[in-house]
Amino acid sequence: MNSHYPSTLLENAVNEFAKLPGIGKKSALRLVLHLLRQDEEKVVTFADTILKLRQEIKYCAICHNISDIDICEICSDKSRSNSLICVVENVKEVMAIEKTDQFRGLYHVLGGIISPIDGIGPSDLEIASLEERVKSGEIKEVILALSATMEGDTTNFYIYRKLQPYNIKVSIIARGVSIGDEIEYADEVTLGRSILNRTPFDESFNQLSK
Amino acid sequence: MNSHYPSTLLENAVNEFAKLPGIGKKSALRLVLHLLRQDEEKVVTFADTILKLRQEIKYCAICHNISDIDICEICSDKSRSNSLICVVENVKEVMAIEKTDQFRGLYHVLGGIISPIDGIGPSDLEIASLEERVKSGEIKEVILALSATMEGDTTNFYIYRKLQPYNIKVSIIARGVSIGDEIEYADEVTLGRSILNRTPFDESFNQLSK
Repeated sequence: MNSHYPSTLLENAVNEFAKLPGIGKKSALRLVLHLLRQDEEKVVTFADTILKLRQEIKYCAICHNISDIDICEICSDKSRSNSLICVVENVKEVMAIEKTDQFRGLYHVLGGIISPIDGIGPSDLEIASLEERVKSGEIKEVILALSATMEGDTTNFYIYRKLQPYNIKVSIIARGVSIGDEIEYADEVTLGRSILNRTPFDESFNQLSK
Repeated sequence: MNSHYPSTLLENAVNEFAKLPGIGKKSALRLVLHLLRQDEEKVVTFADTILKLRQEIKYCAICHNISDIDICEICSDKSRSNSLICVVENVKEVMAIEKTDQFRGLYHVLGGIISPIDGIGPSDLEIASLEERVKSGEIKEVILALSATMEGDTTNFYIYRKLQPYNIKVSIIARGVSIGDEIEYADEVTLGRSILNRTPFDESFNQLSK
């Protein structure tokens, strides 16, 4: 026994936690010992909640976002514009954009981005279903809101080409200097982009005063 | 719904993870989304392992370390000296000392240290059971291996006084400059301690060459 764990039960639990991303053996042991100190009923709730999530979670039939119901709250919200779709990578981005309160259209969750290095191609993502939604005719504009990385750009371009035949507007979220950033410290690519994509000052001013 | 979580199942799971020490809402979401991407059977194993740990874990009847059996492997190991007891805070310290391969006695796991600020007093720890072990008469030396903090020192002193009537040797692990540390960067208290507790060079040399 070179593992030094005094108990197989303990070792198994540590190993399970250490499988989670960003959690090493030391943190895993800390988490497991914390759970051991809790009331049994609390640990039962912990395990049940995770199990229930995995077993009962649904994905919205329209936008593929995580949902408790067949058609998610956003897609079934009649007050939102169904002619505007924002394409995002995952549920995290939906949450981030919802937090801004700046978007009242619908989403389309790809479930990832094209990344040959991770073996993720277009067919692994919800791109065909996006095309179907566009084909159905109600959509006027698709906003691409993927990460500003090479993988994001590849995916943006792939989707753009796929949607070209349908004669709709395809836009991409603005890239530029972050609000609060000092110009001096902005990287040159971002700064260059923000100059190329400059907006009329009165437009920008109107946005601020809203 | 100001939470922005698209699903109650998701939100509950995130909240459960966020209860763990050192895990905030953002990390919790990342971990939960990771589990969602795994095969269901893997998530079942994860939840079951944790549940099983909490429900089936035992504590050694002698040393109070975590154990799968009534008397732990260390306490039932006949090749170890039962006249020497090392007092530690928790299972983590047992594992750390076992890793050194420098100790062949038994342990006594206190389950914490005296910390009035956290509401932990002597009666919350396995101190009475340590006294019982010493009273039984086989023990010749107790080594105190608690953290070199104020709480550790308080606990050391409390145990030392409790064990004084039994006429056994009570020792404390050496405190000094860590192996590999440069003197220049050692803090003055540690450096001072290491000078006061200097050991004959030939002794130290013999230890190195072993």
